[in-house]
Amino acid sequence: MNKEFNLALIGLGQIGNYLLNELNKNKNDILLKTGKKINIVAISAKNIKKKRKYKINKKIFYKNPLEIFKKKKLDLLIECIGMSDGVSKKVVETALKNKIHVVTPNKALISKHGDYLAKLAEKNKVNLEFEASVGGGIPIIRTIKEGLATNKINKVFGILNGTCNYILSEMEGTKENFRTVLKKAQTLGYAEPGNPKLDLNGYDALAKVRILSSLAFNKKISQKKCLMEGIENIEIKDIEIADQLNLKIKLLGITELINNQVFERVHPCLIKKDNYIANVNGVMNAIILNGKPVGESVLQGEGAGPGPTSSALMSDILSILRGNIKFPFGIPDSKRKSVNIYNIKNYSNSLYLRFEVKDKPGVLSSLTSLLAKKNISVERLIQIPDPKMKTASIVIVTHKSREIDAQKCLKSFLKNKNILKIPTLIRLF
Amino acid sequence: MNKEFNLALIGLGQIGNYLLNELNKNKNDILLKTGKKINIVAISAKNIKKKRKYKINKKIFYKNPLEIFKKKKLDLLIECIGMSDGVSKKVVETALKNKIHVVTPNKALISKHGDYLAKLAEKNKVNLEFEASVGGGIPIIRTIKEGLATNKINKVFGILNGTCNYILSEMEGTKENFRTVLKKAQTLGYAEPGNPKLDLNGYDALAKVRILSSLAFNKKISQKKCLMEGIENIEIKDIEIADQLNLKIKLLGITELINNQVFERVHPCLIKKDNYIANVNGVMNAIILNGKPVGESVLQGEGAGPGPTSSALMSDILSILRGNIKFPFGIPDSKRKSVNIYNIKNYSNSLYLRFEVKDKPGVLSSLTSLLAKKNISVERLIQIPDPKMKTASIVIVTHKSREIDAQKCLKSFLKNKNILKIPTLIRLF
Repeated sequence: MNKEFNLALIGLGQIGNYLLNELNKNKNDILLKTGKKINIVAISAKNIKKKRKYKINKKIFYKNPLEIFKKKKLDLLIECIGMSDGVSKKVVETALKNKIHVVTPNKALISKHGDYLAKLAEKNKVNLEFEASVGGGIPIIRTIKEGLATNKINKVFGILNGTCNYILSEMEGTKENFRTVLKKAQTLGYAEPGNPKLDLNGYDALAKVRILSSLAFNKKISQKKCLMEGIENIEIKDIEIADQLNLKIKLLGITELINNQVFERVHPCLIKKDNYIANVNGVMNAIILNGKPVGESVLQGEGAGPGPTSSALMSDILSILRGNIKFPFGIPDSKRKSVNIYNIKNYSNSLYLRFEVKDKPGVLSSLTSLLAKKNISVERLIQIPDPKMKTASIVIVTHKSREIDAQKCLKSFLKNKNILKIPTLIRLF
Repeated sequence: MNKEFNLALIGLGQIGNYLLNELNKNKNDILLKTGKKINIVAISAKNIKKKRKYKINKKIFYKNPLEIFKKKKLDLLIECIGMSDGVSKKVVETALKNKIHVVTPNKALISKHGDYLAKLAEKNKVNLEFEASVGGGIPIIRTIKEGLATNKINKVFGILNGTCNYILSEMEGTKENFRTVLKKAQTLGYAEPGNPKLDLNGYDALAKVRILSSLAFNKKISQKKCLMEGIENIEIKDIEIADQLNLKIKLLGITELINNQVFERVHPCLIKKDNYIANVNGVMNAIILNGKPVGESVLQGEGAGPGPTSSALMSDILSILRGNIKFPFGIPDSKRKSVNIYNIKNYSNSLYLRFEVKDKPGVLSSLTSLLAKKNISVERLIQIPDPKMKTASIVIVTHKSREIDAQKCLKSFLKNKNILKIPTLIRLF
């Protein structure tokens, strides 16, 4: 193998820019650890003039990344644009077809086109590495593919979105409402200033769940619809009631094998305060794996931000420089099985239901009788009146109930005029 | 590289035996993930007749492991005997000299002879892998060498000994004394039935600290004396008082860089209850790293037992089969710097001191005046009388005090006839 390695870096946002500086700073360390000298021969971004933390060398700048393939001999391309399709996909595709290794933190791209791109990488005998796509600085992908290589993993779950975890922690700490805390998160750079929707509605966490799922269970990446709920509807009231019940609210991403069927989901969970995962706060991410023979493994670290992400990107780059050619998903593409999806209708869970109702006689009994009709039995009931508004919050924690019964039940409440808004449902962990 | 790989397994205790079964069970999975077929061509143990969980093939059995080198062509040797010298060292040395890769969970061997053996492996262009030597199933060594490859790590610490952590957790939970809980741990297989001393006195954790230290800081392995205290002197009284102070007692292994000097130590620590590491209980291990740019990373998992250890051994074996030749300590031996040791005398810490004294006038004042003389200032004082025995426990939590002052102070107490036994000292975290 060559002693020199030509790199191209595509995308100079927060992450690309930070990585560029890390690469330049660590050239000697990289030589020491891998025996390879790296040359950054091309960089590309939309706008060369944008104000950046670190200077860019204009001589190697390309506005159109696809031009680079014609002009430079590349060994490794780093894609930091972040789109699920478009130029991100085109650049990665072209690199792999030209036998150029690819490193990317792009979870949207990998969760959507990972199967296709992995096959392409394999065919061309180059690496496609995406450690930074899940859990920021946490080396979770390497851990599943290598550290726990022959374990039979049956469940992976955790806090996969730092934005949501920051917002929930901050609401809990300050008693400020969702909108106020979201604005704070945007100011601090923890949430997208423009459109934070993909973080808040669970989409980002679900992309990560799907990547973890395919790695842990040696399956193709699922593209099917599944349970995805975000934190937009969590109110400070829910956090306060949870606190009284000795619970905390966290957005979890979960994937598990049930009778060889994959059950992937992202939704807020009520977790007992003494549970480890309830105490992972702020922008931290944490991932828990259950495997045989290893037992339970926990990995926790900063889940986002250019520092941790660069750390993960660098680990992929060094792995490639060391000549460690691997299957992108740990096993050959041909051996990755297609996914059987678990039917969520069979899923049972204890539920937290919060109803906002008119505070008048008969409302509570009509509510509980409807629950009984739908096979949902009450474990605990709290009524909090608001005399000023002549309303009340009724919180019900149910015994284990089937998801299908709960959904039917919630729908039937819509007709009830005494219920003032769509009830809030949060699953117990 | 060959498509077939000849393995020898030396040592068939709990771990060797479990691993043998895992290897046999996972042959297809290994072929799938690495493209290599493994043949177990030799196994060795002291006694072929010992009752074992899994049957051994007598045709490939050797009483003397050194015979194997003469009779079989080996690619990879797994050493599971566990001695720091003797036949363990001889076997590993011979393998490396014969260009045979080595995998071992033997922390005693690596912490003592790791530098020499790493050099030998490098010279002969084979791997020496020891993921299983620290943290059982936690892929901590791979994480430092690869996952966080270009990070500047300045501190690594954690719970590194499952036996001690089990005993402390159990004392806390049951209020039983050290001896009773130790016996229980031995019955359950969590502590050596014969001589558990090396776990209890901190020696085992220190060997792990030294391995982590050299990996994290790119230094040779320190062989110098350093602060090593175990849990043998922790009494149930200390655990109860800690509880009142909202603290828990944990045995921590710590290594950090202070002004480019390495400060390694193992000792019990008093940790605030809401700290993550205070809530890692039972036989679990947890390791926390501070690095730039990654921030704080936490890894937690089962720290011992044949299952987790085999998981780590398998990850090393697969890495070798995949052809991933690496420097045993991440960088070339010639680049690993010798260690400058931090002088512990300069170290300051808040201390918990428990004195058992005769309960009579003047004792407390003589005690506090002596502390003042030695520059140790009291932050908190608790006196618990035992009227029956006419004695009292005096617990003092100090402000930050220099280690050297504390040691001098403790010595001077020995002369005081009113102090009934050597005071207990536990450092605050």
